Amino acid sequence: MKLKMVEGTVRLLARRGLHATSFSEVLELTGAPRGSVYHHFPEGKEQLIREAVAFAGARSIQLLESKAGATALEITEFFLNLWRELLSRSNFQVGCAVLAVTVAADSPVLLSEAAAAFRAWRKRLAELLDAGGLGPTSAAGLAATLIAACEGAVVLSRAEQSMEPFDLVAVQMSEHVRTLLKARSETIPAE
Amino acid sequence: MKLKMVEGTVRLLARRGLHATSFSEVLELTGAPRGSVYHHFPEGKEQLIREAVAFAGARSIQLLESKAGATALEITEFFLNLWRELLSRSNFQVGCAVLAVTVAADSPVLLSEAAAAFRAWRKRLAELLDAGGLGPTSAAGLAATLIAACEGAVVLSRAEQSMEPFDLVAVQMSEHVRTLLKARSETIPAE
Repeated sequence: MKLKMVEGTVRLLARRGLHATSFSEVLELTGAPRGSVYHHFPEGKEQLIREAVAFAGARSIQLLESKAGATALEITEFFLNLWRELLSRSNFQVGCAVLAVTVAADSPVLLSEAAAAFRAWRKRLAELLDAGGLGPTSAAGLAATLIAACEGAVVLSRAEQSMEPFDLVAVQMSEHVRTLLKARSETIPAE
Repeated sequence: MKLKMVEGTVRLLARRGLHATSFSEVLELTGAPRGSVYHHFPEGKEQLIREAVAFAGARSIQLLESKAGATALEITEFFLNLWRELLSRSNFQVGCAVLAVTVAADSPVLLSEAAAAFRAWRKRLAELLDAGGLGPTSAAGLAATLIAACEGAVVLSRAEQSMEPFDLVAVQMSEHVRTLLKARSETIPAE
């Protein structure tokens, strides 16, 4: 039941933001009994949100793991597609739970949980992109840029209720990765 | 006084999000008399937020106008720097008011005001980048990407309380623009 509540909280955060995400909404969404609130989250709403951010962060990394060993371009397109599906499946109603917490966080504890999630994404995505042919420097830069560009593009597409901004960004990101890969293949002699 | 209240609302949205932005907070921040609320905003909070989003949108475009006639690379670096200064001046406390409204909007009216602001940014930035040497197709793509990447990078840097993610993104964006300009100069013969 605790996991279900945490998952429901991620969904509410992603759809409606931090302040609209309350225990009442989580109970209604998940059908959890009221007693489970203080049983599972004795520290209150902050604990619930903190655990939701950590859960959302870990789940995103888990999704990325399926692309371990792929090329940087494949990883990039997989990553772009994850976000695109989030928009299309929800009819532009849903964004990123961690972003929603960051822009409305009223406590350093929540901000620091969001920071940990973003840093872990950047780190793991950079490792995969590095192994996928980019080398460590470009990989670290591209990981930050892919995450930032997708986060921002999802917000533009949610506001505009249209895939157009997201798709413009996705094309540019794929082109950028191709350029980075080409530049690297030209500077490193084949063995 | 109305303008002062609208400006104050933009600041609150950018710093604390949609739900923490109330008339009481705006009155406290601006020193406006309580009577000015219903005098200037007879439709209530939604009107205040709507006008704040429109104001933030128009102000950003006005800032861009100072780079009319500049090269696409100069425009890109100017744009990146606007966001970087927002982060550094506020010690990572402040982000984008329009994004904050988008991810917590509970009314189609607010979402549509945010959409209008984003669309106007994309359009004007694309025109400037086109004139700055990119051509219309790359300019439309880059405008969306720059806005998305900056919006996302600002969120990462706010969460992490560090310029590191923003700076990684800024380097990649500048590199990407250089590549687009180079590709264009190679396909269009000089006259």
